[in-house]
Amino acid sequence: MVAEKRTRLSRQARRAQLITLGVQMLATRSLEELSVEDLADGAGVSRGLLFHYFDSKHDFHLAVVSELAKEMLERTAPDLALDPLDALHASLSAFIDFVSENRDGYMSLLRGAASGDPAIRKVLDETRAEMANRTLAQTPVLGIPAGPRTRISVRGWIAFTEEAVINWLSDEELSREELISLVSDALPALLIGAAPE
Amino acid sequence: MVAEKRTRLSRQARRAQLITLGVQMLATRSLEELSVEDLADGAGVSRGLLFHYFDSKHDFHLAVVSELAKEMLERTAPDLALDPLDALHASLSAFIDFVSENRDGYMSLLRGAASGDPAIRKVLDETRAEMANRTLAQTPVLGIPAGPRTRISVRGWIAFTEEAVINWLSDEELSREELISLVSDALPALLIGAAPE
Repeated sequence: MVAEKRTRLSRQARRAQLITLGVQMLATRSLEELSVEDLADGAGVSRGLLFHYFDSKHDFHLAVVSELAKEMLERTAPDLALDPLDALHASLSAFIDFVSENRDGYMSLLRGAASGDPAIRKVLDETRAEMANRTLAQTPVLGIPAGPRTRISVRGWIAFTEEAVINWLSDEELSREELISLVSDALPALLIGAAPE
Repeated sequence: MVAEKRTRLSRQARRAQLITLGVQMLATRSLEELSVEDLADGAGVSRGLLFHYFDSKHDFHLAVVSELAKEMLERTAPDLALDPLDALHASLSAFIDFVSENRDGYMSLLRGAASGDPAIRKVLDETRAEMANRTLAQTPVLGIPAGPRTRISVRGWIAFTEEAVINWLSDEELSREELISLVSDALPALLIGAAPE
């Protein structure tokens, strides 16, 4: 029993290491380019051994995307000790740094073939829902009433932010600070417009 | 020569009819559900004959999506005789009616497996670029300076609008008029925020 448990734990730990390596590889390649061969080379193991840790290439990709989303949510968690607009600015700064570090993987997830995969879409949708819930938790503090207009506006603002960041990653015509102020100013602008008159 | 030309023209005309039928079918089904069998049934022709008009199912899907995008752009073309904000309101009303009529197909294009197909993504991206260019053509009239902030904000606003409409199609918690005012108010709110101080 003890031996079995130890083996299982180390399999989990080894799988987690491989997922971390996969996430690192997404900095400079799309999810489609993240092959099992590259992972095997990077980890110094055989391609066959990887299938001891992952059921399939899709299972590996899904695990990497889930880990990337989890790290993004951790990095961008709002600092509740700050004023809501300062917390928003800090979270967006962290978000933009995170996607800059994971540029190619991030762009492929949002705009590549992976965006059509149902399991990967589910992870992305859950991540967006968590971002929306965090944002909605702050809106009463800003004096914005809860309701369908506010909910739709917050979800729309997340889409606005993703599109703005994707455009910025492609051409970088704005500085990092200009982009952060563009997306953080957009939220109150949209929510004030969204408040019932 | 004359006979050959006539045959070629009628093949084009027949292909156009089949594309129109495919677009109509997208009102109540996703692109993935739009099968060659259903098209053959609807048109009263054999499945085999369809491949006289389309190279493949993908070719058929791509032609239908291109036609849908073309019709959407025609329906939402801004009325340049109107004041820019009235023209925006009219275009958005037409857009929301268009996507309501083509609900299932529209949602599948933006959020389904088709969104990962490179050829279909290209049509969607070109359509969004045309929507952005139309909008940007009006911004000087509104006193908004051209520049990267304005360009990124307009593209972000199109993503905001798509997300708001997708949410609205899913739950319809707002009336049609409330949705139109939400997305049309959002553009000036975002652009005023985007103007350099």
